[in-house]
Amino acid sequence: MTDDRGPAKKPPMRDVLAEAAFGLFMERGFERTTVDDIVARAGVGRRSFFRYFPSKEDAVFPDHERCLADMTAFLAAADGEGDPVDAVCDAARLVLRMYAENPEFSVQRYRLTREVPGLRTYELSVVRRYERTMAGYLERSWEGTPDAALRAEMIAASVVAAHNNGLRSWLRSGGEGDAGAEVDRALELVRTVWGQAAGGPAAGASDDEVIVMVAPKGAPMWRVVQRIESALGGE
Amino acid sequence: MTDDRGPAKKPPMRDVLAEAAFGLFMERGFERTTVDDIVARAGVGRRSFFRYFPSKEDAVFPDHERCLADMTAFLAAADGEGDPVDAVCDAARLVLRMYAENPEFSVQRYRLTREVPGLRTYELSVVRRYERTMAGYLERSWEGTPDAALRAEMIAASVVAAHNNGLRSWLRSGGEGDAGAEVDRALELVRTVWGQAAGGPAAGASDDEVIVMVAPKGAPMWRVVQRIESALGGE
Repeated sequence: MTDDRGPAKKPPMRDVLAEAAFGLFMERGFERTTVDDIVARAGVGRRSFFRYFPSKEDAVFPDHERCLADMTAFLAAADGEGDPVDAVCDAARLVLRMYAENPEFSVQRYRLTREVPGLRTYELSVVRRYERTMAGYLERSWEGTPDAALRAEMIAASVVAAHNNGLRSWLRSGGEGDAGAEVDRALELVRTVWGQAAGGPAAGASDDEVIVMVAPKGAPMWRVVQRIESALGGE
Repeated sequence: MTDDRGPAKKPPMRDVLAEAAFGLFMERGFERTTVDDIVARAGVGRRSFFRYFPSKEDAVFPDHERCLADMTAFLAAADGEGDPVDAVCDAARLVLRMYAENPEFSVQRYRLTREVPGLRTYELSVVRRYERTMAGYLERSWEGTPDAALRAEMIAASVVAAHNNGLRSWLRSGGEGDAGAEVDRALELVRTVWGQAAGGPAAGASDDEVIVMVAPKGAPMWRVVQRIESALGGE
């Protein structure tokens, strides 16, 4: 739609605007910064802002649209190969990568978002779009099987919750350490509970192979599942 | 805070305002209705509206605050008894009951919400508050156990997704039939996957009892879990 490549060496206008906006939000607060303040700092006209961002909120999260497009493309390419639950876990890692690309910005934005209800609400809408993208993929993958939509929606919600649990730990720690490790650990629980028993070894196993599992009868189901996983040699 | 009991026989002011607001939203659309229009129809002053509702959006969902309070009270009373996963499934049914109390209103509101992005966003915030209430309860129930927060957040997200899947089916059908049946079926999958193996029988079983489960090795995990459940005599 818009060409954001300026003359050589100048950063793209979109980036200039996002940076001017975020700088002002941090200095003056989100509510007290107007679009006029932003365009004045960026040295452009008011209409330029709205060419790139529908609202002030959008300038706080300038990369989500690209990331949503990446996720959609990634899942389209994954169609039909491997366990769909693994594919959506990998799709969630695209979101994490976006946050991890710029830890300082991500941590500052996390703190800002905690303080501004309008930004939290905006973030909920974005998260919901990721969730629907993943649920749509799962439902298509399981078309014609029982409860495809129900399972797809439950699993997509679990993936989002797990991803955000790991991401939040990392953001709260100030962006120190390995963001991926926290999220991987959380997503592993999704795969344990919802993925095909065929983590690795069973991928090549025939349908008539069987497993026998023994566990205390009073154990919580998620622990029973973990034992099955380990009996299968997965993990 | 406010006394909404008027003289005998008159409906509470809050209800009068919510009804005037919703009537106008349906006739003129949400965006084209002002607070002034609403108070004119209700026959009260502008300040009365804001005594009861912080915003126009709140008047569309007049019962969520009460329902959130009911859920909090319900979970506080449930603390420590039975499987916490069963308790949050029952808590989710309180939300359903609110929708089912007035099918016609719920269906009209569902259609209105689909058309107004601001209402969808508002609804996401409300749903998030239910989710956090349930996650908080689960986390407290499992305090000191591994991954308590992670499991709590994943399960609360699953419960919300399951509840909304069932609720949406019912709303899309125009509020015909039994809303509870759709939601029960969806929540049953949460319990199958996340509840204690002790659906019924194992509640009284000792910890050293064991089950032996046989299943095709390539089966998806959720199906394996269903077989365990049925082996346990649950369902």
